Amino acid sequence: MTTDSECIFCKIVAGDIPAEKIHEDERTVAFMDVNPGTRGHALVIPKNHTKDLLEIAPDELAAVTQAGQAVARRAVERLGADGINLLNCCGSEAWQTVFHFHLHVVPRYVDDPLQLPWIPAPGEPDEIAETAALLRE
Amino acid sequence: MTTDSECIFCKIVAGDIPAEKIHEDERTVAFMDVNPGTRGHALVIPKNHTKDLLEIAPDELAAVTQAGQAVARRAVERLGADGINLLNCCGSEAWQTVFHFHLHVVPRYVDDPLQLPWIPAPGEPDEIAETAALLRE
Repeated sequence: MTTDSECIFCKIVAGDIPAEKIHEDERTVAFMDVNPGTRGHALVIPKNHTKDLLEIAPDELAAVTQAGQAVARRAVERLGADGINLLNCCGSEAWQTVFHFHLHVVPRYVDDPLQLPWIPAPGEPDEIAETAALLRE
Repeated sequence: MTTDSECIFCKIVAGDIPAEKIHEDERTVAFMDVNPGTRGHALVIPKNHTKDLLEIAPDELAAVTQAGQAVARRAVERLGADGINLLNCCGSEAWQTVFHFHLHVVPRYVDDPLQLPWIPAPGEPDEIAETAALLRE
């Protein structure tokens, strides 16, 4: 597995820093965004360190997207989300801030006020943990 | 192939209504968005009619995403984009307006003013055609 010892998401994959993981398979990990745009906002990443959409191998991109679809389904079924946005940000001009490929899975709710880019602000940890418990396999 | 005779994107796949197509393979078609958020804004769709992220078959989702990656690469190499957003909108609460699965490939440029949702407004057809010519295989 390719890892970058300075990368915060590689540390999450390794379990070296905590995260509310909700999905893991051979190639991907999904966990809660600590600065959620909406309730249930999660990130799906490849376990291999890869910078962005331009670098990720096509088969890893497929695995991440399919894991994102599975997480999206759970958000609809278990959180009552009324819609979903999948978003990838490639490059700082496209709002990328962590340079390990990640796919945002953003549950949407009737009349929620989400705009993109959202203003990142820490969510309430207990609420994130409760939501993670609902989304977990 | 699954088609819906009322669906505008199925009509684009069939060639029954015009579109600036820039990519086509066995399973997907990509074409310019007529209401572009930025220069080069394209949509990638499966040829099979499928409503949204919750309905699309995982292998078709992978094919669409991989075609989106190819289009993104061309936007960087040929249009000079500084970044890319991939966006899928699933459900009207998540800004979906055409109910045939589509992945937005939105090129980003230094200091462009894009916010999501953008206000849809028709692009200049000649400019879209010129950009399509650059993005075409």
